[in-house]
Amino acid sequence: MRVLSGIQPSGALHIGNYFGAIRQYIALQEGNDAFYFVADYHALTSVRDPDRLRGYVFNVIADLLALGIDPERATLFVQSDVPETTELAWLLTSVTPMGWLEKCVSYKDKVQQGLPAEHGLFAYPVLQAADILLYDADVVPVGQDQKQHLEITRDIAERFNHVYGKGGEVFRLPKPFILDAVAVVPGLDGRKMSKSYQNTIEIFDDPAVIRKKCKKIVTDSTPVEAPKNPDTCPVYGLFKLFAAEEERAEVEQRYRQGGIGYGEVKNRLAEVIIATFAPARERRADLVAHPTRIAEVRAAAAERARRTARIVLDRAREACGVG
Amino acid sequence: MRVLSGIQPSGALHIGNYFGAIRQYIALQEGNDAFYFVADYHALTSVRDPDRLRGYVFNVIADLLALGIDPERATLFVQSDVPETTELAWLLTSVTPMGWLEKCVSYKDKVQQGLPAEHGLFAYPVLQAADILLYDADVVPVGQDQKQHLEITRDIAERFNHVYGKGGEVFRLPKPFILDAVAVVPGLDGRKMSKSYQNTIEIFDDPAVIRKKCKKIVTDSTPVEAPKNPDTCPVYGLFKLFAAEEERAEVEQRYRQGGIGYGEVKNRLAEVIIATFAPARERRADLVAHPTRIAEVRAAAAERARRTARIVLDRAREACGVG
Repeated sequence: MRVLSGIQPSGALHIGNYFGAIRQYIALQEGNDAFYFVADYHALTSVRDPDRLRGYVFNVIADLLALGIDPERATLFVQSDVPETTELAWLLTSVTPMGWLEKCVSYKDKVQQGLPAEHGLFAYPVLQAADILLYDADVVPVGQDQKQHLEITRDIAERFNHVYGKGGEVFRLPKPFILDAVAVVPGLDGRKMSKSYQNTIEIFDDPAVIRKKCKKIVTDSTPVEAPKNPDTCPVYGLFKLFAAEEERAEVEQRYRQGGIGYGEVKNRLAEVIIATFAPARERRADLVAHPTRIAEVRAAAAERARRTARIVLDRAREACGVG
Repeated sequence: MRVLSGIQPSGALHIGNYFGAIRQYIALQEGNDAFYFVADYHALTSVRDPDRLRGYVFNVIADLLALGIDPERATLFVQSDVPETTELAWLLTSVTPMGWLEKCVSYKDKVQQGLPAEHGLFAYPVLQAADILLYDADVVPVGQDQKQHLEITRDIAERFNHVYGKGGEVFRLPKPFILDAVAVVPGLDGRKMSKSYQNTIEIFDDPAVIRKKCKKIVTDSTPVEAPKNPDTCPVYGLFKLFAAEEERAEVEQRYRQGGIGYGEVKNRLAEVIIATFAPARERRADLVAHPTRIAEVRAAAAERARRTARIVLDRAREACGVG
């Protein structure tokens, strides 16, 4: 089964990214033909500094390889290493009704968040459709809140198939693979962990930074000896994602009975985060010290991705009569 | 001086196209570095049949070569043979404010004319900017009514230069070269000759068809002997474009004095059109009989265009930090 997903190069990956997506990307590379790409064409709408963008792209590749994406199994490539994407996007653009893009909530949301109202944001779903259709993807892992984008991709594919398919199909219709909703990861302020809330703990933060951030997680002022509700406490909410079952049960029980202070749980949380990512941190340091290895992985993946993309793009060009 | 212009592959070229643009393209290839492309990516918004589109592209190349575009001097290429165009379009898209596209009249006009309201029509000016900027064009021949598109291209280029140029420029700003307004070419019904009015005489119509169409040009019922106004007569309007000066002066005088019938002028008009394009018609028949020659011209031009495009595209990619 061909699995495809894109990762935004918009800065260091945080724990929310890990549980929300990356952990599942790593799992999906087993037994599937996984294509993961770093979406730098998309990032242009928000990152306006070339050196920063290149840095982000390099770092995301390093992060993902360190965390366990295996370049022998998954094709981990950079979007702009496959310019075929933009050509397919234009072919799709010419059959995409304006109304479909106008009703997309993500454009309005982003503009409301303060991003400039640029055409790149508006046309984003078309490029995303090209990203997906170009690889004949069977499934696309998406969060519940990203289902609309995959629906537009399917609509555009069906429209193109209808206009140009002569009864057959030019594009394979991808299906959503809804990611585990388990992963509601609280941030330092108790809201969902998200870069836009500036409440994140980065996976590859220095241990000292992780300890400091854990200390800052918001808690109420219930005294040590009083019972506490683990279900509403962001410290526990994070701790349960990392701790072994026995440890987790112990802490939960002590929350409910009273007799555990937030300070203790914050300390244990910091140590379990640090320990969990310690092997990845080592692998990452080693990769960053050998950037040519990353360049080699990138080049090999680009070649594999382009070979696949070329087949679909030629089919689309043939169908609509260009070239 | 690098001159660049695109020609829509939307069917056979007519006399209005010839005097409005093609004649001037032929003149501009002397002493300039002319790039002319057949805009098949753009045509996707209106031509939805792949075989018809391929036929149109082949015919436009044959028409232009027959009329005098010299592949040794001008680079006559097909837009989709240079997919770099679509990549540059995406890079430009991410700095193009929605407001600039929303205020374009051509989108609204085309939708009003009955074309479906698709994103390809809306995004058209961005692809057009890529067409022009990709070749470091100095000048773009445009009609008075196409000045807005070049202004958007200049605005987008300036915006990109401002965002990414670090004080220098990534793109050369093209200047408009306003085409001779001489060329108001009346159609069979007296309105401007235009495919959308179905009032055209095609350059390569059979002589018999040209004679038949000339007979159908609208005239009033002024009798032969009465004086007539040449300035308001479409038959004379066409005749004066083709006739040698002496012939033209004679006919004009007889209009003003009376003593010439519309039938006579229509006959003379048909013959002078047929004679004017006779050498081109022969060259065209020869080219169509040897399609591999057209394929060779096309391939060589594509290679030349891509070499040029690559330089500019690499500059743009480097500037914004992709790849």
